Amino acid sequence: MLPFSQNSHYKLSFLVLLLWVSHLVDSKSGFELDESLTYLWPLPTEFTSGNQTLTVDPTLSFSALGKGGNSKILIEGFERYKKIIFKHVSGISLFDKSRGIRSVYDISELRFIVNSDSEELQLGVDESYTLFVAKKDGKSIVGEATIECNKCTAFLRVNTLWRCTSLLANTVYGALRGLETFSQLCAFDYETKLVQIYKAPWYIKDKPRFAFRGLMLDTSRHYLPIDVIKQIIESMSYAKLNVLHWHIIDEESFPLEVPSYPKLWNGAYTKWERYTIEDASEIVSFAKMRGIHIMAEVDVPGHAESWGAGYPDLWPSSTCREPLDVSKDFTFDLISGILSDMRKIFPFELFHLGGDEVHTDCWTSTPHIKQWLNDQNMTAKDAYQYFILKAQEIAISENWTPVNWEETFNSFPSKLNPRTIVHNWLGPGVCPKAVAKGFRCIFSNQGAWYLDHLDVPWNEVYSAEPLEGINNVSEQNLVLGGEVCMWGETADTSDVQQTIWPRAAAAAERLWSKREAVSARNITLTILPRLHYFRCLLNRRGVQAAPVTNKYARQPPIVAGSCYEQ
Amino acid sequence: MLPFSQNSHYKLSFLVLLLWVSHLVDSKSGFELDESLTYLWPLPTEFTSGNQTLTVDPTLSFSALGKGGNSKILIEGFERYKKIIFKHVSGISLFDKSRGIRSVYDISELRFIVNSDSEELQLGVDESYTLFVAKKDGKSIVGEATIECNKCTAFLRVNTLWRCTSLLANTVYGALRGLETFSQLCAFDYETKLVQIYKAPWYIKDKPRFAFRGLMLDTSRHYLPIDVIKQIIESMSYAKLNVLHWHIIDEESFPLEVPSYPKLWNGAYTKWERYTIEDASEIVSFAKMRGIHIMAEVDVPGHAESWGAGYPDLWPSSTCREPLDVSKDFTFDLISGILSDMRKIFPFELFHLGGDEVHTDCWTSTPHIKQWLNDQNMTAKDAYQYFILKAQEIAISENWTPVNWEETFNSFPSKLNPRTIVHNWLGPGVCPKAVAKGFRCIFSNQGAWYLDHLDVPWNEVYSAEPLEGINNVSEQNLVLGGEVCMWGETADTSDVQQTIWPRAAAAAERLWSKREAVSARNITLTILPRLHYFRCLLNRRGVQAAPVTNKYARQPPIVAGSCYEQ
Repeated sequence: MLPFSQNSHYKLSFLVLLLWVSHLVDSKSGFELDESLTYLWPLPTEFTSGNQTLTVDPTLSFSALGKGGNSKILIEGFERYKKIIFKHVSGISLFDKSRGIRSVYDISELRFIVNSDSEELQLGVDESYTLFVAKKDGKSIVGEATIECNKCTAFLRVNTLWRCTSLLANTVYGALRGLETFSQLCAFDYETKLVQIYKAPWYIKDKPRFAFRGLMLDTSRHYLPIDVIKQIIESMSYAKLNVLHWHIIDEESFPLEVPSYPKLWNGAYTKWERYTIEDASEIVSFAKMRGIHIMAEVDVPGHAESWGAGYPDLWPSSTCREPLDVSKDFTFDLISGILSDMRKIFPFELFHLGGDEVHTDCWTSTPHIKQWLNDQNMTAKDAYQYFILKAQEIAISENWTPVNWEETFNSFPSKLNPRTIVHNWLGPGVCPKAVAKGFRCIFSNQGAWYLDHLDVPWNEVYSAEPLEGINNVSEQNLVLGGEVCMWGETADTSDVQQTIWPRAAAAAERLWSKREAVSARNITLTILPRLHYFRCLLNRRGVQAAPVTNKYARQPPIVAGSCYEQ
Repeated sequence: MLPFSQNSHYKLSFLVLLLWVSHLVDSKSGFELDESLTYLWPLPTEFTSGNQTLTVDPTLSFSALGKGGNSKILIEGFERYKKIIFKHVSGISLFDKSRGIRSVYDISELRFIVNSDSEELQLGVDESYTLFVAKKDGKSIVGEATIECNKCTAFLRVNTLWRCTSLLANTVYGALRGLETFSQLCAFDYETKLVQIYKAPWYIKDKPRFAFRGLMLDTSRHYLPIDVIKQIIESMSYAKLNVLHWHIIDEESFPLEVPSYPKLWNGAYTKWERYTIEDASEIVSFAKMRGIHIMAEVDVPGHAESWGAGYPDLWPSSTCREPLDVSKDFTFDLISGILSDMRKIFPFELFHLGGDEVHTDCWTSTPHIKQWLNDQNMTAKDAYQYFILKAQEIAISENWTPVNWEETFNSFPSKLNPRTIVHNWLGPGVCPKAVAKGFRCIFSNQGAWYLDHLDVPWNEVYSAEPLEGINNVSEQNLVLGGEVCMWGETADTSDVQQTIWPRAAAAAERLWSKREAVSARNITLTILPRLHYFRCLLNRRGVQAAPVTNKYARQPPIVAGSCYEQ
């Protein structure tokens, strides 16, 4: 028993009590948002707002123009967001019939104008959108004309029927991003019991700064059930993250079914901690409905011990089990088989081949591999390069663009296939070198963007800049974006979401919003209140986002209080 | 930065690495369940099983007999459980068309026989059920007859049409409990890609030991969004818990709308951390669909400081704010108004009036109350009793059975209304005293069943016995059951579920299963593997249940590994 818990419901030590009392004095006088800030996360590229409050019809309908208007992705997305927006309205006015019922709402239809009917989801797909939110009786003009609703004249010329409130996008994926923004504009007002949009009319023209805005999940150190992966994908869409990097397999366990080599998933922890190919496909489909790519990883040759549970020949020896045996054709046949099977599941053009932390002692100490190295006239380092390049060839033959952790680039940059995407993790300064050599790069500097580093506070996550040290525009264009990594040694179903959120949101805004917008001088004043607000939004949507400002990530709140201040 | 994290993806210290290696040696040789145990949680009252493996049709249908067969509660329950049971089957056989598709399954229909069409959900509602699971071609006999399917002859006589597989219950709530059990029998087999039931045929005859199996949530220290409360209610149904004790309001915040006194929820932390009456009704309905009561609490007079944010007259003075001013009629008028409004929302016959931790200093130190005490010839202790009894009268006038924390019983047992239910929390030995005086009792001994006591391991939760010290059967019958309490100082949306689970499950089995079954000598061998299994089941269903055997509750897993062993 904790000593102070013996005779108290509430376990408040005197110190905590003091903290709480001072908090009460502050908050009971009325917590107020800083109204000079815009509570959209991530911040849109361009926007203007007004000073009207509009009501939104709980039976909000949508109409569609453009080739993409009938997309299932759009229709299901709209239904999903309706449930989020109108969460509180279902049972209005139990007591007071006059409240919450109106015959006329300011917004009763959302008009989509989606230009393309292509649902192809590839890197760099157009995620831009324009959102215009105003009263139905706002001026609207047919034909090629200037919209005159208040301030937006400077921005918008359209050559199609435009009505307030409208969402214009080139693709359904842009429309999904716009729907997320629309949902964040909608707020349930507890006094009127109506969903309202403040500061209307809104004119928002938005697009991401980077095409690749990732979150890595590790399902080898702890198996994450498919329901949990889906919860995380859903939450990613709230922050406009768009790549789930699925680090499926590692040393500890091999959870994925590989039909060509059916004993591989003998390396799962248990027979229930596995993904069938149908599970994997279901995850890909679920993610696509939210505009999210799945980038799968098969990390060779260093992080692959679990493969040998089914095929012990892959181990250098039964006592020295890593890296995979470089000397055997079987090793590469098996990699071919895995990638061939996985290609049928993962349509995204990027595939991660790992290649990090390859310690070659087992190669040089195992007689048959030592002999093979001699026969090939290779050092262990040569063999590492040989392995990586051979794996790249296999991936490329499957029409994949290979991604490798930075050690491959650090070791033999001139040998890597030029299509290689270098994935930074060890520290800063790698992307500048990679893009200088013409490679594309993904930024995941572990000092800032490894979510398992619990001692990195939100502001350090927020301040990490993928383009740091890259001044040439053509080189900047080679930085695809970045990714926060959720390694799973101490993250399982119980705590993975509280470890991801809210810090992943800090990176998400860095990756989406304009560099100027995320480079404010005093982020404690300008960004932190918005991040608190977004954390509470995640909580309201059932996501276990942790307090923002605790010293260590994912720590419980230390005292009673509001999520807007913790 | 943690020193060992600088140059490693995985942050394994040497010690952790050693732990992991030893683990790998164990688990890679193949984790196996102890097949002598029954992996149903909580354990049913009576059951027999066989040695057949049966397949379950992914298009499982149900048919209904009896008056209750067409209940919406039953139909929606069946759909909910179908989604759980057939989670993996949706996209079968992407690669191998011959797998996962069968024309004949052993079980393609679940027959419900629900005797009553009453959906009234009150304390002690019949939750019993009989579940029989066998092949369609198992012997079945029409009319009053003995079922001859294997071992079950000893148990079952039915006077209605009985077919294998069937679920018989007196109420829809019993049927829901049986559906949960059925869902736990169903296991997805990753090799055949079929949902299978092992050890069939099953014959299960089950009912709860206690009518009141509760979990308390505190939404005052941290506001919990309605989505989160719903997630928790859903997870309660998995463990057959049936009472959500909603400690809505406390000193720190007053989140609930009270139409008669509309300024009360000014005491919410913010204008968004509130529950409308419609939100509260929605929670009651959502819970009812899962056979779960909502027992609301208004904790007076001690834990009510937040009330004064809207109505400062309730405070003894602006500087001395608790307990509520006992001297004013307004205080009791307002309690009447709250209870009258709440009665329209909360149909459960029990209502919790709190009454704990009343420190009367503000009464004796505030002149106008001191004067009133003198005028009434009351001590502060008398006034405490006066307040509690007056609140009880108000609750009883609303046709509620009052529940009070044990201090009320400890202070003036002979004065309490005889209908009072005494809610134990301070320590052991209270329920024996309460039932000896004829009161009913709820067991929540803080040393075992306060979930915010993070240092109480699962086995101490499991071993706490509500009937301890009560030997007389008629007195035992006065113990309604028990409740685990999740006080919210350090539990918000981010961590509340990992603090509740898996320990709440330990109490749930104690409260449901036969006393002999939960009193095994070596629970590490007989219960712990089953609790691990149930924790993994919760995880699979998306519930953030924490590792079972960490020294402190809700701590992250300390190393990579399987949920079946952590």
